[in-house]
Amino acid sequence: MNDLFSEIDDIFHSRSLAIYGVSRKGGLGNILLQGFIDQEFPKIFIVNPRITESNVKIMGIPVFSDLKSIGEPVDLVICSTHPKFVRDIIIECGENGVKVVIIFTAGFGEKNEEGKNAEEELLKIARKYKMRLIGPNCMGLYCPSSKLSFFPALPTESGSLGLVSQSGSIANLMGFLAMLKGIYFSKAISFGNGIDLSFNDFLEYLGDDPATKIIACYMEGVNDGRRFIDLVKKIKKPIIVWKAGVTPAGSKAAHSHTGSICGNNKLWNIVFEQYGVIRVYNLEEMISMIQAFIKPIQVTNCRVAILSGPGGPAVSSADACEMNNLKLAELTNETKLKLQELVPEFGSSISNPIDLSLQVAFDPMLEINAYEIVGMDPNVDMMLIWLSMLNPRYKDLIKLQEKISKPIALVSAIDVNVSRDSFSGTMKRFIQIRAKKVPKIIKDMNQKGISIHPNEHLAAKALYNIYQFYNKSKKSIVLKQ
Amino acid sequence: MNDLFSEIDDIFHSRSLAIYGVSRKGGLGNILLQGFIDQEFPKIFIVNPRITESNVKIMGIPVFSDLKSIGEPVDLVICSTHPKFVRDIIIECGENGVKVVIIFTAGFGEKNEEGKNAEEELLKIARKYKMRLIGPNCMGLYCPSSKLSFFPALPTESGSLGLVSQSGSIANLMGFLAMLKGIYFSKAISFGNGIDLSFNDFLEYLGDDPATKIIACYMEGVNDGRRFIDLVKKIKKPIIVWKAGVTPAGSKAAHSHTGSICGNNKLWNIVFEQYGVIRVYNLEEMISMIQAFIKPIQVTNCRVAILSGPGGPAVSSADACEMNNLKLAELTNETKLKLQELVPEFGSSISNPIDLSLQVAFDPMLEINAYEIVGMDPNVDMMLIWLSMLNPRYKDLIKLQEKISKPIALVSAIDVNVSRDSFSGTMKRFIQIRAKKVPKIIKDMNQKGISIHPNEHLAAKALYNIYQFYNKSKKSIVLKQ
Repeated sequence: MNDLFSEIDDIFHSRSLAIYGVSRKGGLGNILLQGFIDQEFPKIFIVNPRITESNVKIMGIPVFSDLKSIGEPVDLVICSTHPKFVRDIIIECGENGVKVVIIFTAGFGEKNEEGKNAEEELLKIARKYKMRLIGPNCMGLYCPSSKLSFFPALPTESGSLGLVSQSGSIANLMGFLAMLKGIYFSKAISFGNGIDLSFNDFLEYLGDDPATKIIACYMEGVNDGRRFIDLVKKIKKPIIVWKAGVTPAGSKAAHSHTGSICGNNKLWNIVFEQYGVIRVYNLEEMISMIQAFIKPIQVTNCRVAILSGPGGPAVSSADACEMNNLKLAELTNETKLKLQELVPEFGSSISNPIDLSLQVAFDPMLEINAYEIVGMDPNVDMMLIWLSMLNPRYKDLIKLQEKISKPIALVSAIDVNVSRDSFSGTMKRFIQIRAKKVPKIIKDMNQKGISIHPNEHLAAKALYNIYQFYNKSKKSIVLKQ
Repeated sequence: MNDLFSEIDDIFHSRSLAIYGVSRKGGLGNILLQGFIDQEFPKIFIVNPRITESNVKIMGIPVFSDLKSIGEPVDLVICSTHPKFVRDIIIECGENGVKVVIIFTAGFGEKNEEGKNAEEELLKIARKYKMRLIGPNCMGLYCPSSKLSFFPALPTESGSLGLVSQSGSIANLMGFLAMLKGIYFSKAISFGNGIDLSFNDFLEYLGDDPATKIIACYMEGVNDGRRFIDLVKKIKKPIIVWKAGVTPAGSKAAHSHTGSICGNNKLWNIVFEQYGVIRVYNLEEMISMIQAFIKPIQVTNCRVAILSGPGGPAVSSADACEMNNLKLAELTNETKLKLQELVPEFGSSISNPIDLSLQVAFDPMLEINAYEIVGMDPNVDMMLIWLSMLNPRYKDLIKLQEKISKPIALVSAIDVNVSRDSFSGTMKRFIQIRAKKVPKIIKDMNQKGISIHPNEHLAAKALYNIYQFYNKSKKSIVLKQ
């Protein structure tokens, strides 16, 4: 652990904070404040120079006309004012011993040359006072264990996922989406233009942070490619990267979004493959891959068994596996004999992909018995299972996984969080699990190396990525030596 | 309209039906029967030779020991018995003037050579009696307007989607998934091994069927490629095809599933592109493309405007558009000036992709006003809009579309059918629309050329497919002449 680690870790352990930009009529600052109130952050102050009366409170939080009047040290400042006020606020913070300022305010380097110059000046001031900056044009930090937040209603539960995002909205959306799938955060960072602490700094921090077991990144560009490569080489935790701005159009958009230079996409791919970085292209893929890497099970080969009752999806799943460089497992004769005894004579198939037939609709034990037979086959390294939708058998599967211990990717064509109320009439009866219970169920499955996906292609991609992570990247070669 | 059309249309208008394979203890036949009961099909009989007592009823339906004892004509027979009984049942049906038999029973040509021979014999018998066969190894027909069904709890509401599926389970799943998105069927057909009436016959029928405005297909292989090409060339309705068995592994799986020969994937692609067939690779894509083609709006160019508040997703959407061969629209100066007045000075971008900033969270009219300004720009042919999640603004958008009339693809990262209950605590308040209302909302949007997608890549694919359908396929060239 180096100085940078301690410095960022101190920021995450700030004990008091002040917000600029909260007003009586409401606005973005008030939203940010609500985030901290929801997490029950212990010591919050509002600074608003327009409010000069004493003993004023907004949203229950005391308001001061300047930092000094607070009369006690403030570790962290959130700045959500018009950009023209930011410079003076930074100076005020420096003079009052603030350790870090999160500049939520936009309208700097991403806007024009003038904004870039303003950023340089802010940085100069911060350096003078040995103060760190996050932003501008960012959401800031979310860390449920130390009650930091950047948006209202984010979970107070901690988890093992660390997120670094160049986009604040994606950091927010990830909070929502992750919660639906029972995924929780150790830390999430939205650093925007990143004029001081930036992508690589936070990536390095998460690499060393003991609470973070898996790292997800949304990035448009990095300002030090060499350091990024060194970091992904060094960090042994799974790193999932959504690199946007991969086409000329996207790259141009990224430039006006966070002022990023995106670089050559092919080069990125080479780096990602060499160092076992898992690449995704949208939020849906991101959530799929995170699930698969919450507790990935090590494999040395990638022979997949596909199980489905009934058969149509089995064919497409075989396609999806082959498209994702997986091999279809050759089942042993023993497995085939056992399956033959188990599955109905007709409308089924006991060679991989295994079609359990429509009989699964009546015989709840058929599926789970088949999973066990196939999962114990020494020729099977991983399993792709089509569910149609989540059903109460998940409990048996979790139990069974203690015996099998192989990566399992489930496909549920109907989103697992879909409400029973979306269905009309008797269709409701097919939704066997209450939406409320779903996040916890997925969390329990993820903890056992079982992930659940909206289609067979993402399921196959997840399985291949696990194999790739342990076997194909330079990182894994180093790890094995 | 030819003889084949009338023949299949007569089948869809069967007025009485009998089911073999329903028993007192329950089973697959009982499930099929429940489907017809749920649709309130007017005249149903059960035939079970083991039940010789008179006046027996199962699930409220009268049971007879043979067809003749029913004492009145039966148009349609569903056969869900052990395969060894099928031959005699077909003969009995022929002798009693049945017009069509749906052979649900599996264990024929998809199983082995013996099964193939048995199929040939069944066909010979059917021909002798001028009777048509659907199956074996299939679910049969679903047609809410004439109360036919192949599974319990399918919607009784009719729509404009015709489905031909070689897989029964996919036909079923489509029923569920479509309902979630407010998509309803004119007819759905699962024909399994298709020894008599098969893929091409039903495709031709749906092409001529006035109730069907859009056709979706799940296919593994066709037995007459030439005729298939002629059909997709001739049919002017949008045809969406999920062709499975595209890899060696998938192709092998398809062979044991329905005995299909899948053919060369590249060839399929050439045919699909030439004749404007929309190709999809899984159920999720299928539902996305169906939505986009419920009421597609004709375009002659593919310049897309991307709108998003806030910005991260805008960058990735620009990537997605470029990856899908769309162009990013150059907004007119007039549009830019109007946007400049509308959006906040900071944290926004008025050049395409348009970033409306976090301000959208407070100002509900900001989004809709921006949609109008951008939608009216003559340089904009289509719009891709990031929503984060469905919100009550959809009503304004539907209204606005009357003025704009351009293809619009929405992205909602959180599945629109997700239950409020999936979220914990105050997070619930962000879900502004009750799950129950979602299918109807999507239906209303689809009717106005607005589709909604789980990620930006499917949204971009949908927009490109609309452009391609009207401009790039040989079909559109013929249409324009």
